[in-house]
Amino acid sequence: MPVNLHAPVASALLPVKGVLIGTTEAGIKKPGRKDLLLVHLAPQTTVAGVFTQSRFCAAPVIVAREHLAAGDGVRALVVNTGNANAGTGEPGLAAARATCAEVANILSCKAEQVLPFSTGVIMEALPLSRLISGLPACAAGLREDNWLDAAQAIMTTDIVAKAVSKQITLNGITVTITGIAKGSGMIHPNMATMLGYIATDAAVAQPLLQQMAAHVSDASFNCITVDGDTSTNDALVLIATGMSGAKAISDIKSVEFGQLQAAITEVAIFLAQSIVRDGEGATKFITVKVDGGNSIAECKKIAYAIAKSPLVKTAFFASDPNLGRILAAVGYAGVEDLDVHHLELYLDDVLVAEKGARALGYQEKDAQRVMNQSEIVIRVALNRGVTTAVVWTCDFSYDYIKINAGYRT
Amino acid sequence: MPVNLHAPVASALLPVKGVLIGTTEAGIKKPGRKDLLLVHLAPQTTVAGVFTQSRFCAAPVIVAREHLAAGDGVRALVVNTGNANAGTGEPGLAAARATCAEVANILSCKAEQVLPFSTGVIMEALPLSRLISGLPACAAGLREDNWLDAAQAIMTTDIVAKAVSKQITLNGITVTITGIAKGSGMIHPNMATMLGYIATDAAVAQPLLQQMAAHVSDASFNCITVDGDTSTNDALVLIATGMSGAKAISDIKSVEFGQLQAAITEVAIFLAQSIVRDGEGATKFITVKVDGGNSIAECKKIAYAIAKSPLVKTAFFASDPNLGRILAAVGYAGVEDLDVHHLELYLDDVLVAEKGARALGYQEKDAQRVMNQSEIVIRVALNRGVTTAVVWTCDFSYDYIKINAGYRT
Repeated sequence: MPVNLHAPVASALLPVKGVLIGTTEAGIKKPGRKDLLLVHLAPQTTVAGVFTQSRFCAAPVIVAREHLAAGDGVRALVVNTGNANAGTGEPGLAAARATCAEVANILSCKAEQVLPFSTGVIMEALPLSRLISGLPACAAGLREDNWLDAAQAIMTTDIVAKAVSKQITLNGITVTITGIAKGSGMIHPNMATMLGYIATDAAVAQPLLQQMAAHVSDASFNCITVDGDTSTNDALVLIATGMSGAKAISDIKSVEFGQLQAAITEVAIFLAQSIVRDGEGATKFITVKVDGGNSIAECKKIAYAIAKSPLVKTAFFASDPNLGRILAAVGYAGVEDLDVHHLELYLDDVLVAEKGARALGYQEKDAQRVMNQSEIVIRVALNRGVTTAVVWTCDFSYDYIKINAGYRT
Repeated sequence: MPVNLHAPVASALLPVKGVLIGTTEAGIKKPGRKDLLLVHLAPQTTVAGVFTQSRFCAAPVIVAREHLAAGDGVRALVVNTGNANAGTGEPGLAAARATCAEVANILSCKAEQVLPFSTGVIMEALPLSRLISGLPACAAGLREDNWLDAAQAIMTTDIVAKAVSKQITLNGITVTITGIAKGSGMIHPNMATMLGYIATDAAVAQPLLQQMAAHVSDASFNCITVDGDTSTNDALVLIATGMSGAKAISDIKSVEFGQLQAAITEVAIFLAQSIVRDGEGATKFITVKVDGGNSIAECKKIAYAIAKSPLVKTAFFASDPNLGRILAAVGYAGVEDLDVHHLELYLDDVLVAEKGARALGYQEKDAQRVMNQSEIVIRVALNRGVTTAVVWTCDFSYDYIKINAGYRT
């Protein structure tokens, strides 16, 4: 079960003016599951996106990048689950383009103004006719207050839908931010089998929104790992409709840009952490913090070595303070000049190791107390510089194997 | 259960002249398990070693490196299981040195002529007095035909002991090679919770033996991964007693050097593959071969991305031909300029994917037939160069979690 994560309540999800949402059961996934989401955006909306770094990126990722780059603006997003349209070659690209053309036809915009997204099984043909047959129902049901439906429609192995809203005041005007995300396995930065959509009714010039998207993903979705597998389909999309009435943000150094970016980052971190809390088979939520480094890169290397280690993750699943495995991960993280005698390892407030060995005052019962918790902070203090990195991950349980051994059945 | 791997028979393991072996139950591990091995070497023996690249390497690794570098020759090895003496700081180093001093005392050599090795749990103090109490029994039992005992004495979570012998003829003289290894979890190159000892009665000058050790480990133990965790204690040791009567090898370009290196590499590959076959929870033995690359480095990156992916490994455990996961791993392997439309993916002889998508003639039943086997070859043909890399791995099962969640209990 997800770790300290509850399904969102529909009434807590605030509409964002200019964002209309429709969903349906197109029959791409198994019966009884919504699997198609259509988002219709008001004309003046700006949209920015960051995508998977995989060389084997999916057809919709290729098309979405092209359409964003075309600079014609974005009027619609279309998202299906049940099939990733990845590893599908030229026919897959044609299917993604046909999807956009059909959405454009229904919503009276250009195909280049539609961004397609897919998530699900890889290397199977997209069931295009079923997808297209589902579009009219999505269009007929377009509403502003449909965010919970949207969050549910993009779920794959997720147990709990992920969505959150936040309001801030910009120059006296209330601005709303609502975001949804999905992802549970194949989660590793740059980015994950992860789809995230965050919309606001603030107004932001597109180039600034693109910079904000990069910043937001680095501070949130790029700090999580479930299994170290980077997916073919990841995307984070920021949407700014401008319909709140707040003045358009066009200066990256303005107070308003900073306020909005901070609020959107907060929403993104909530969603990213929700993905880890709902990580496949997760029973514990683990924050790995490495500080006192010479560079962010070395802190990240060590944090990820710990967060990805199956041995560390199985020990946490067992609540077994076999913490030497953390030291082993620090050792093989690939930081060549690391002097392990100067670092300290903490489990929450418990000093576990220093001077290359178990700390003198360390007692296993103290670590055991922390290991029994469902939320744990592993902290490595490198004591040689001022940089910090944080990675959020979960433990590794029988259920991870069960979910992934039986994914297609 | 180990994949197509059977326990060695004592009579199949050939003595190596000049290598005496003694084992005992020192009480470091649980009762009823041999946990201490003493190897006494004839005076003219040359010894070479390669060790873990971990920054958190264990105390015995530090001491063994020092003693090898001292150049006084090596007269004895001492190996304990049940405790890794890693993450133990200065007291751990002192314990490793005290062990060597005691062995030197018993065998009448210098402490610098003794190499210590430990494997087992990390960050717990080495039970030095029990180890030292066990040494006289080891010394009293020193024999040439004790290789099976040696292989058993170094086991940790191994189910099956790993040992093999081979004979070749060098200039008309029969030369014997016998090797043992241990390792099952925390297995990843550079190197693994892996100990390997290969002895021959050929004569090889020490600098040449050191070069041979590097070559042999690159072609064997550095090609395996079980869980991607590199251990703090790995070591491969080559021993050449020179007592076969074969002429000493002092030219790296000689035919005899090549013949011996090939035979020792063969022994090392058998032992390395045995470690994977006995990988924690393994039910399948998987060979990942990447060919047609521009560099060995890029082939290795892709081979390891596949071999380490928990998603790929759980699919193989389930015999589920969800082979898009392999494409996803190829995509995120980090080869920046890879054009995925030019590569081909094979499962044994079945062409699965080409042109960035499922191959036209591909039928899932063909892949299913291969997936049901216990030995499977995944081949990625990059079709852009002439280099090749091979990695051996196993699948990821419930038992991996079970073994590692309960390791210390």
